[in-house]
Amino acid sequence: MKQRNAEILCIGTEILMGDIINTNAAYIAKELASLGINVYHQSVVGDNPKRLKDSLELAFSRADIVITTGGLGPTYDDLSKETIASYFGRQLVMDEEALHRIERHFERSNRVMTDNNKKQAMMPEGCVIFQNENGTAPGCAIEGRAEQEGKTAIMLPGPPREMKPMFEQGVKPFLLKDSDTRLVSHTMHFFGIGESMLETILHDIMQESRNPTVAPYAKTGEVQLRITARVKNGEDAGSLLVPMMERIKEKVGEFLYGIDVGNLQTAVVKALKEKHLHVALAESCTGGYVAKRITDVSGASEVFECGMCTYSNRMKQELLGVKAETLANYGAVSEETAREMAAGIRKISGAEIGVSVTGNAGPEPSEGKEVGLVYIAVDSDSLSEVFTLHVNRKDQDARETIRYLASSHALSLILKAVETVKSLNI
Amino acid sequence: MKQRNAEILCIGTEILMGDIINTNAAYIAKELASLGINVYHQSVVGDNPKRLKDSLELAFSRADIVITTGGLGPTYDDLSKETIASYFGRQLVMDEEALHRIERHFERSNRVMTDNNKKQAMMPEGCVIFQNENGTAPGCAIEGRAEQEGKTAIMLPGPPREMKPMFEQGVKPFLLKDSDTRLVSHTMHFFGIGESMLETILHDIMQESRNPTVAPYAKTGEVQLRITARVKNGEDAGSLLVPMMERIKEKVGEFLYGIDVGNLQTAVVKALKEKHLHVALAESCTGGYVAKRITDVSGASEVFECGMCTYSNRMKQELLGVKAETLANYGAVSEETAREMAAGIRKISGAEIGVSVTGNAGPEPSEGKEVGLVYIAVDSDSLSEVFTLHVNRKDQDARETIRYLASSHALSLILKAVETVKSLNI
Repeated sequence: MKQRNAEILCIGTEILMGDIINTNAAYIAKELASLGINVYHQSVVGDNPKRLKDSLELAFSRADIVITTGGLGPTYDDLSKETIASYFGRQLVMDEEALHRIERHFERSNRVMTDNNKKQAMMPEGCVIFQNENGTAPGCAIEGRAEQEGKTAIMLPGPPREMKPMFEQGVKPFLLKDSDTRLVSHTMHFFGIGESMLETILHDIMQESRNPTVAPYAKTGEVQLRITARVKNGEDAGSLLVPMMERIKEKVGEFLYGIDVGNLQTAVVKALKEKHLHVALAESCTGGYVAKRITDVSGASEVFECGMCTYSNRMKQELLGVKAETLANYGAVSEETAREMAAGIRKISGAEIGVSVTGNAGPEPSEGKEVGLVYIAVDSDSLSEVFTLHVNRKDQDARETIRYLASSHALSLILKAVETVKSLNI
Repeated sequence: MKQRNAEILCIGTEILMGDIINTNAAYIAKELASLGINVYHQSVVGDNPKRLKDSLELAFSRADIVITTGGLGPTYDDLSKETIASYFGRQLVMDEEALHRIERHFERSNRVMTDNNKKQAMMPEGCVIFQNENGTAPGCAIEGRAEQEGKTAIMLPGPPREMKPMFEQGVKPFLLKDSDTRLVSHTMHFFGIGESMLETILHDIMQESRNPTVAPYAKTGEVQLRITARVKNGEDAGSLLVPMMERIKEKVGEFLYGIDVGNLQTAVVKALKEKHLHVALAESCTGGYVAKRITDVSGASEVFECGMCTYSNRMKQELLGVKAETLANYGAVSEETAREMAAGIRKISGAEIGVSVTGNAGPEPSEGKEVGLVYIAVDSDSLSEVFTLHVNRKDQDARETIRYLASSHALSLILKAVETVKSLNI
């Protein structure tokens, strides 16, 4: 398959005016990279036919594939399809399946379908239609003939929750249809190691790897590696992916918390469920952040019964049984208080694992403890320890970063506690 | 001042590849709109001199002002300044103040400054420099002469926490410097009314308003109105802004929760502080989300002592004192349970206001209660009521949306309770 270039053209006055952030472009760019398709330009244009036409012609002067988002709605200013069909010299024709799906969508939501909604089922003749499982406007792909030979336009709806599933289910197979190969990937999730350290350790592996490729993605406190193999249809990707993941595990396995697991909180809920364990939380400076992240995961109720946000010293004593002497001698932000909080919440709740967080999220030092100092404790039959976190940030996002990292470390300690139980074969 | 057009050109391979989401473009677009500067195109290009040069020429063929972000770093592939200076026929010269600031930045963070960091202080001759208060790379503006007469390039660093303060403190005054007028705005925050309803009620006001202008911004469950007046230097903006805000309050004042207050949780902490009140939380389906949002606000410890996430029925009984009969007769997701949870947490904590949330965040119905049904109760000396929330969402973000909206309603009920105390003159 020859190397193809794509351009991303996002259409919508709301994006242009800054009323919404353009997350679609990043999503599509990343997906195209994983398909081996280069992107050299992204652009945004409003719902204006003249400027849209100019932008489309410019994009096709630089790229083989132009992927648009937005402008497929029912209102008069949604003109993407008309403009793009006209570029390819095509008429719009009614697509009966799309119309039928739109009608059913309105029936299901008990809303009245107006005539302009039918416009959404008018599609360029000869296009490939991507039905919309999460909204009304279908997407489509037009492949150029004659003068436009070799040019492909792919039109997708603007709302990310419609666009992303359509890309995954419709656009990816479309882009790979002329290919006798397919891409299979796994994501390895790491916590407790920075991106630059991980890249340093894995430098040689990452440099030399062509198939599978190894690509790092950093987010606050975490790094993910996406391992992607390109295999011939009918071949097994495992023979390429598994040895590579084993090589990586040998080097940085101690920081690996899961494969294809989404995020820390999902890994925590999954791990607890597998061992039929429960966790209880006592949070001070994170004030509910750990509990919030755990309960983000549906099904958390099987493993999480109770969390307490004890922000004041009085509540730490009354609710968790932290000793007055401990608070007086060491302060609320201390290893000792963290330890008693974790033991206290475990006792109260009857959970197998108790976790606590106490620290200073800023903006001012308190009890003489600096901003960014946080103690995170875990208490279970097989593991009892305190992790000390220092976050050296002074900017406007410092409070959020300190609280987020502290909550991540709490989740990581829960995983460690579950792991300990596992090794004891309980 | 003649009407000017601007284009936003974001430079960076990380944005192009989708590794980071381009939040800068939305921020700048919105700020330019508030300055009365039109934006018709946004684009993204990688760290490639040829494509950057082409994109720059294209942008200047369409606009008077081109604002770039990114490419100002110390490494070899950061070439924005060289490319843009060359477009204007300028050399790069060392700026001593910028160099001095960079040196101090490294001293303060105890890091060694390498030679390539000095490159960041090399600025196009004759430019206006915007010093960077939050990082090392300064920004700048170049105003064209001769052939480039009337063209202005503004270069800003890529990291949002450096770019935004620089825009606010440096770029805004620069863009307004030839103007004898300035812009003053206030933001009115509404909760409990949808954007389309608000726009319908305020349609005439919004249509006819030229000075001040009234612009709505919607986010999940909330709407903000930005009221912006353009006044001659030395004139008072209040005479334009105050009557407009009064007119708006007359129509939709019951939904207004604050002016220039940032968000619901900040308004809650502020309101509680002003009355020296405390709130305590009992959360079931939000599982710490309300506590997390309140403790996002620095200084929350003055008004928030304790929250409990009682996810299981057992914990609702043991910790909050919800009656077994209540749970048996009405279920955990019920008005009655919500009421007892709020009263329970208030009693345990000694706070003046107790708030509870119990509901079904999905994905499956439980106890025969549908997904998206949430009860939110408040309990205080002067106010005791339960709000019933129905969220009809089935998509992949449904759980997050239900939990977020439920937490917003809890915050809103706290504000209502504080308001009641106020009216009793306690």
